[in-house]
Amino acid sequence: MISWKNLDTLDSYKKLEELGAKVDLAKAMDGESGAERVAKYCVPMAAGMAYNFAAKAVDDEVLAVLADLAGEAQLTDKYAALYNGEVINTGEKRLVLHQLCRGQLGEDVMADGVNKREFYVSQQKKAAEFANKVHSGEITNAAGEKFTTVVQIGIGGSDLGPRAMYLALENWARQNGTLRMEARFISNVDPDDAAAVLKTIDIPHSLFIVVSKSGTTLETLTNESFVRNALKEAGVDPAKHMLAVTSETSPLASSTDYLAAFFMDDYIGGRYSSSSCVGGAVLSLAFGPEVFARFLDGAAEADRLAKETDIMKNPAMLDALIGVYERNVLGYEATAVLPYSQALSRFPAHLQQLDMESNGKSVNRFGEPVSYVTGPIIFGEPGTNGQHSFYQLLHQGTNIIPLQFVGFRSNQAGMDVDIQGSTSQQKLCANVVAQIMAFACGKKDENPNKNFEGGRPSSIIIGEQLTPEALGALLAHFENKVMFQGFIWNLNSFDQEGVQLGKVLAKRVLAHETDGALRALSDLLGI
Amino acid sequence: MISWKNLDTLDSYKKLEELGAKVDLAKAMDGESGAERVAKYCVPMAAGMAYNFAAKAVDDEVLAVLADLAGEAQLTDKYAALYNGEVINTGEKRLVLHQLCRGQLGEDVMADGVNKREFYVSQQKKAAEFANKVHSGEITNAAGEKFTTVVQIGIGGSDLGPRAMYLALENWARQNGTLRMEARFISNVDPDDAAAVLKTIDIPHSLFIVVSKSGTTLETLTNESFVRNALKEAGVDPAKHMLAVTSETSPLASSTDYLAAFFMDDYIGGRYSSSSCVGGAVLSLAFGPEVFARFLDGAAEADRLAKETDIMKNPAMLDALIGVYERNVLGYEATAVLPYSQALSRFPAHLQQLDMESNGKSVNRFGEPVSYVTGPIIFGEPGTNGQHSFYQLLHQGTNIIPLQFVGFRSNQAGMDVDIQGSTSQQKLCANVVAQIMAFACGKKDENPNKNFEGGRPSSIIIGEQLTPEALGALLAHFENKVMFQGFIWNLNSFDQEGVQLGKVLAKRVLAHETDGALRALSDLLGI
Repeated sequence: MISWKNLDTLDSYKKLEELGAKVDLAKAMDGESGAERVAKYCVPMAAGMAYNFAAKAVDDEVLAVLADLAGEAQLTDKYAALYNGEVINTGEKRLVLHQLCRGQLGEDVMADGVNKREFYVSQQKKAAEFANKVHSGEITNAAGEKFTTVVQIGIGGSDLGPRAMYLALENWARQNGTLRMEARFISNVDPDDAAAVLKTIDIPHSLFIVVSKSGTTLETLTNESFVRNALKEAGVDPAKHMLAVTSETSPLASSTDYLAAFFMDDYIGGRYSSSSCVGGAVLSLAFGPEVFARFLDGAAEADRLAKETDIMKNPAMLDALIGVYERNVLGYEATAVLPYSQALSRFPAHLQQLDMESNGKSVNRFGEPVSYVTGPIIFGEPGTNGQHSFYQLLHQGTNIIPLQFVGFRSNQAGMDVDIQGSTSQQKLCANVVAQIMAFACGKKDENPNKNFEGGRPSSIIIGEQLTPEALGALLAHFENKVMFQGFIWNLNSFDQEGVQLGKVLAKRVLAHETDGALRALSDLLGI
Repeated sequence: MISWKNLDTLDSYKKLEELGAKVDLAKAMDGESGAERVAKYCVPMAAGMAYNFAAKAVDDEVLAVLADLAGEAQLTDKYAALYNGEVINTGEKRLVLHQLCRGQLGEDVMADGVNKREFYVSQQKKAAEFANKVHSGEITNAAGEKFTTVVQIGIGGSDLGPRAMYLALENWARQNGTLRMEARFISNVDPDDAAAVLKTIDIPHSLFIVVSKSGTTLETLTNESFVRNALKEAGVDPAKHMLAVTSETSPLASSTDYLAAFFMDDYIGGRYSSSSCVGGAVLSLAFGPEVFARFLDGAAEADRLAKETDIMKNPAMLDALIGVYERNVLGYEATAVLPYSQALSRFPAHLQQLDMESNGKSVNRFGEPVSYVTGPIIFGEPGTNGQHSFYQLLHQGTNIIPLQFVGFRSNQAGMDVDIQGSTSQQKLCANVVAQIMAFACGKKDENPNKNFEGGRPSSIIIGEQLTPEALGALLAHFENKVMFQGFIWNLNSFDQEGVQLGKVLAKRVLAHETDGALRALSDLLGI
C-alpha cells in the first residue's frame, strides 16, 4: 500500500540529517582510497554506460541510510504505480505515461478506451511511415522535389528536448550516413526567431511541424501564422508543407491545413515528450525511423533499470537520493550539468526545464506547503568551454555547487588530430578526469589566491560514444531521477501551475485591461 | 586616497545589514504606488536605454544607504584609478585597460613605452582596413574569389563574448544590408566541435581567426592544427586563410603562418576583450568596421555614465549595489538573466563567464579569505522560451532568485505578424511586463498549488531596438557592474587562479603521471 508522506516525516530522513556532512571528500579521494572508491562507487547504466559517484561526499553509511530512505519512501512502488497507470499527476488528474512510448514496464494501461502503449506505438509507426515516404521521394513538394529541411515549431517541451536530441545526434548521423534532413527550430514569440530561420532555409524544400498538445499554445500558433504567411509569399501552399503533432481532441487534429497529424495525449507532459511523436516526428524525419527506434531502445533499457529496488543497481534512483542528500542535508542550492561532448551543448537546457519545472515547487502533492527545500537550480555548458568560463566560481567561489559530468571515450565525427602526443578526444577526456579530482581534492598553496579547498562533489556518467542508444538512456536516466526526487519530496512533478499567472497577465496587457505598475511598465515597452 | 577594505568593515554595510529585508515588494508594486515606482525608479542608460528597478525590493531608505556604501567603498575613485592606469589586477600585477578600447576616460595611460589608447586604436584600424579589403575583394583566396565566411577559433573570452555579440547583431545586419560575411565559432577541444563547423562551411571561401593572447592556449592551438589539416586536405594554403589575434610577445605574433595579426595585450582580460580586436576582427569582418565602431560608441557612452558619483545617474553602479544588497543581506545565491530578444540568446552565457569568473572568489585582493559571500550563480535563457521551462521554479520554488530582464520596443528583422489583435513583438513585450508583475506581486489563491507568493524581485533594461550602440552599452553596463561589485567585495575581479589546477592535472593525465583516483578515472575514460 503506497503512502505519500512528506520527506521530513520519514525516520530515514531524520537519520540522514543526524549523519550530516560526514565525509571528508578531499581525504576520501586521495591516494589508494580514491582509486578504491572509483572502482566501488560505480553503477552500470543502460546502453553500456556507467554512473560513477566516487567523487560524491558519501560513504557506505550514508548509502545505507539512502537505501533505507528509498525503501521508506517506497520509490520503486511509486514508480510501478506510475507505469501501471495510476493518477500520479493528481493536480491535473492525469496518468503519467511517457515511459509507454518506449516500452511496456508493467500491466497494460487502458485509458480513453484504448491500450495506451498500442496507441503511442501506432503514432510512432505513422510518423515512421511518413518519414520513409519523404525520404524515398514518395511525398514531395508541389514541384515533385524532395524535402531537404524539417523545421519544428514549438516551445518549452516541444522545443528544448527535441532540439537537444537533434543536436546530440546531428554529427553522429552525418558521420554514419543517416542525416536525411537538416532540422531547424522556431520557438520564441520574438518575431526575429522565426525570421532568422525563414531567411536561412530553402522554403520550397522545407517541411514544418507544428507541435502543440492543446493546439492553443499562443507562441506556437503565432509562429505558425508567421510561417504560413512566409510560405504564401514564397508561392508555396502551406497545407502541402505542414504537419501537426497534437492531441486528438485539439483543433489541429482534424484540420485540413496539414499534410498529416501525429498524436500524443494529456498523459505525456511536455518536458517528458521527447520520446513521443513530439520528438519522434522531427527525429525520424532528420535521421530516419531506425535511428529514433534505437534512441527509444536506450530509453527503455534505462526505464527497466529504474525498477531495481537495490540502489546500487538503479542509477537513476541513486542519483536522485544523493541529490536530495546534497540539497536537503548539505544545503547546496544548484547543480551544474557539464557534458564533455559538444553534441550535448543544449542538453543542460533540456535538463533545466525537466528538473526545474518538475520539482521547482513549494507545496506537496496534496497542495500543502512543505517545510524543506525542493528542486535546485540547474545550469550548465559543455566542457571544456565552461572551464574557460564559470569554473572559476565552481572552484573558488563562496558556495559549493555539485557537478554532473558526462564523458565519452570516443567522439562522434571520426575526425581527430594528434598534437603534443595526444588526440583532441584524449585531451577532452583528460580534462574531465582532471576536473573531478581538482574539485574533490583541491590543492593546498601558501598563496591563498592559488589555494583550492577541494571538497566539491561531482559524479560522472561515462559511455563509449554518444550513440542513439546512449542518448535515449541519458534522457530516461534524468527523467527517472527527477521523478524519484519528486517522490522523495512528495511533490507532483507533472504539473506546472507556476507558469499560469504570467499568461493571464500577458493577455490582460494585450487587451489593455491594466492599471498601476502593469500599465506604467506597458507604456515603457510601447504596448 | 583610496583604501581597499573588506565589505564587512564598512559602516554603511552594517547599516544595510540592520535595515535587512524591509520592503514588502508585493505591496509596494500594487496599485498606484507601483506606477509611481515605475516612474521614479528608472535610471537612464547609454544608447537611449533605461534601467528600471521598480520591482527590486528597495526603497528610498535602502537606496540612501546604498549611496553611502558607494561613497564609503570609493567606487568611482577606484574606477578612476583603473582607467587612469593603476595596477588594479594586483595578483598578476597588471593594469586593467579594456575601456581604452572604446574611449579615453581619464589621463593618457603610458605602458610598455606606448600610449595604450593609441595602441588599441591602431590595432582596431588595422583590423578595419583588413576587413575593408576583404569586403572590396582586394584580399581574396588563391583563386581570386571573395571570402564569404569567417571562423573564430578561440575559447573562453575569445569565444563567448564575440559569439554572443555576433548572434546579437546577425539579423540586424542582415536586415540592414551590412551582413558582409557569416561568422562561425570553434571553441571546444572536443574534435566534434571543429568537425561540425568544417563539414558545414565552404572552406575555400573561409577565413579563420586564431585568437589566443598568450599564443599557448592548448584548446585553441589544437583546434588551429585541426583546421590547418582540413585546409590542406581541401587543397587550400592555410597561410592564405588564417589570421591571428594575440599579444605582440606571443609566438603567433610574428609567424608567417598568418595573413595578418592584430594585437591586444595583458591589460585586457579575456572576458573583457569583446571590444578589443578579439571581438573587433570577427565583428568587423562580419558586419563591416562601421558597425563595430557604433558598438564601441555605445560602450564608451556607458563607460562615461559609470563615472557619475550619483547612484541615480550611474546605472552600472546602482545595479551593482542592489545586487550586493540581494546577495549579502537578503541572502540570494543566483541571478537569472532573461533577455526578451532571441538575438541575445547567448548573452547570458557571456555574462555567466564575465560575472562568475570575475567575482567567484573567496579571498580578497590581498589574498585574505573573506567572511561574506561573493559572486552569485548566473544563468539564463531568452524569454519567452524560459517561461515554458524553468520559470516554474522561479515563480513557485523554495528559493528566491533575482531576475534581470532585458526588453526592446522594436524587433530587429522587420518581419512581424498580427494574430488575435497584436503583433508578435507586442506579445513578447506584454510577456515581459506580465512576468515582472507576476513575480513581484504574485496572486493569492485558495488552492495553494495555484498560489503565488510574489515578492520575487527583478529589474529590466529597456531599449528601443537592439542596435550596435545598444549592444555596446549593454556589454559595458555589465562589465562595469561586475567591476563595481568586485570593488565592493574587495576582490581582484581580473585574475582567475581557479582555472589553473585543472590545467595542471590534465597535463599530468596526458603524460600518464598519475596514480590513485586520477589513474582509475583515466582508465575508465580510456586515456
